[in-house]
Amino acid sequence: MGKAERKKIIIDTDPGIDDAMAIFVALNSPEIEVIGLTTIYGNVYTTLATRNALHLLEVAERSDIPVAEGSHVTITKGTKLRIADFVHGSDGLGNQNFSPPKGKAIDKSAATFLVEKASQFPGEVTVVALGPLTNIALAIENDPEFPKKIGQIVILGGAFFVNGNVNPAAEANIFGDPDAADIVFTCGADILAVGINVTHQVVLTDADCEKLAQSESKLAQYLCKILGIYFSYHLEAYATKGVYLHDPTALLAAVDPSLLTYTEGVVRVQTCGITRGMTIFDNTKKRYGENTEWSNKPTVKVAVTVDAPTVVKIMMERLLMNS
Amino acid sequence: MGKAERKKIIIDTDPGIDDAMAIFVALNSPEIEVIGLTTIYGNVYTTLATRNALHLLEVAERSDIPVAEGSHVTITKGTKLRIADFVHGSDGLGNQNFSPPKGKAIDKSAATFLVEKASQFPGEVTVVALGPLTNIALAIENDPEFPKKIGQIVILGGAFFVNGNVNPAAEANIFGDPDAADIVFTCGADILAVGINVTHQVVLTDADCEKLAQSESKLAQYLCKILGIYFSYHLEAYATKGVYLHDPTALLAAVDPSLLTYTEGVVRVQTCGITRGMTIFDNTKKRYGENTEWSNKPTVKVAVTVDAPTVVKIMMERLLMNS
Repeated sequence: MGKAERKKIIIDTDPGIDDAMAIFVALNSPEIEVIGLTTIYGNVYTTLATRNALHLLEVAERSDIPVAEGSHVTITKGTKLRIADFVHGSDGLGNQNFSPPKGKAIDKSAATFLVEKASQFPGEVTVVALGPLTNIALAIENDPEFPKKIGQIVILGGAFFVNGNVNPAAEANIFGDPDAADIVFTCGADILAVGINVTHQVVLTDADCEKLAQSESKLAQYLCKILGIYFSYHLEAYATKGVYLHDPTALLAAVDPSLLTYTEGVVRVQTCGITRGMTIFDNTKKRYGENTEWSNKPTVKVAVTVDAPTVVKIMMERLLMNS
Repeated sequence: MGKAERKKIIIDTDPGIDDAMAIFVALNSPEIEVIGLTTIYGNVYTTLATRNALHLLEVAERSDIPVAEGSHVTITKGTKLRIADFVHGSDGLGNQNFSPPKGKAIDKSAATFLVEKASQFPGEVTVVALGPLTNIALAIENDPEFPKKIGQIVILGGAFFVNGNVNPAAEANIFGDPDAADIVFTCGADILAVGINVTHQVVLTDADCEKLAQSESKLAQYLCKILGIYFSYHLEAYATKGVYLHDPTALLAAVDPSLLTYTEGVVRVQTCGITRGMTIFDNTKKRYGENTEWSNKPTVKVAVTVDAPTVVKIMMERLLMNS
């Protein structure tokens, strides 16, 4: 596949252990070209997310890819950030004390970078959003044409008709910036949302992890080292010996949309009260007598099923490639 | 079954076409004794609900049963009431212009009546709540021991892991008074919630309706007359030729709990924003790292499956009894 034919991808990321997996899978995916990483708070604060993004590209010997640092705060200023260091370690990468990266972020904000790339390649860029949606919302605020110019936004986020993972109502990425998420979900762009109702079906087992450890692949061996704390968290929180492949699933959904099925409808995000950060999808089965907050809003695609064995298989293959 | 052995039932109701069905089924159910009706706004305003409750008891020749009028306003005063006259007709009973009832409500509020009966028969009274939960919440406010004294509260309300029927987030009875609903769901009483995820499986067909019309039963013939507008609403809103048996299903769940299965967990109600009136059930599959608004609250039972054919069969049998 020639470079020109490959799908251009920007990964908006808060690395994060499963972010690292998704980034490595992306770099080994011949169908796509990663044209940049943008960073955001979530699993770690934004400064550390930028450091980790640069570090991961150096591990993969792909420092040619630019990193643009994103927002340090939610779109509605003043919200206390929720940082999931208890899931990913205080360094975001399994408490391995990696050396600082040599490279630096480019001299542009994530939102500016997103708008520039969408304008440079209209309809051709896919954003894979693996953290809270602040940068994407800022891109929309900075350029109202962004939703039309961007090819697709694949959102890892939401809990559709299931309990959340921050609390019974909300999933972590949407909870991280509910106001931004509501802006993005209703912006009119081509959006595919991959929620935990789907990603909780895609599990890496300890046997899979052992295969990564035994391989010659540098990236696979690297991931094994950082995965320990992620396995411990899942055992504690879900009483399971596997780990959920949230970010790699969303990334592979961008690479090959046929790995999942989706339905279309309007998604709104609750921004206050006990269900703050909850995603509510209108399944359009009922014709409501009154106008609702979902009426006359643009629809999005919401993933409902996933070919989990194939997602795990492709991910493993790409992580086991010699690099 | 002797009168003493029968389960004592108070129906809190906003008649309402399916309320009328539930009340008639209750009066023909040998397992229970209806010891009172309390009224509430919802399908109609409270004044009309009281009039209709008295009227229905007169149609069934059961004017011996007391009717206590309930609240005219939500528990947090000042909320505009949502009256579902477009579902049940402006009179609540299919626009049939029935004569006013001869009887009158007793000289006690619904909340006072509920507290008195729960105190008189501790642990023995089941409330079947077919409308917004204001009266029950007021009973709890009036007597903090009410949750312990009441036998069970069967709530027709909520939309658990499905879209609502007022809007994609909220079901009508909970939307009618979300603050009251949150008080009731967290009060510690023995609560069984029957939501539209269950009642949408229980459908009366036009063939069933024809059977009611052809019968000798006065109550069946009465119901056929008022059901027309209810069928029209379902055709418009759901593109279906049947009608959902919300209230009769909840009533029969009180009569025979084995007609459905349930799971247990904490339910909270969102009281603000676009998901106002939404019921969020914690399925307890995850151990959350942080304290949530669901932590350390009393659990309730939430219906998950229903033996729909048997519910319809029992309902039809009891409506076709000669009375």
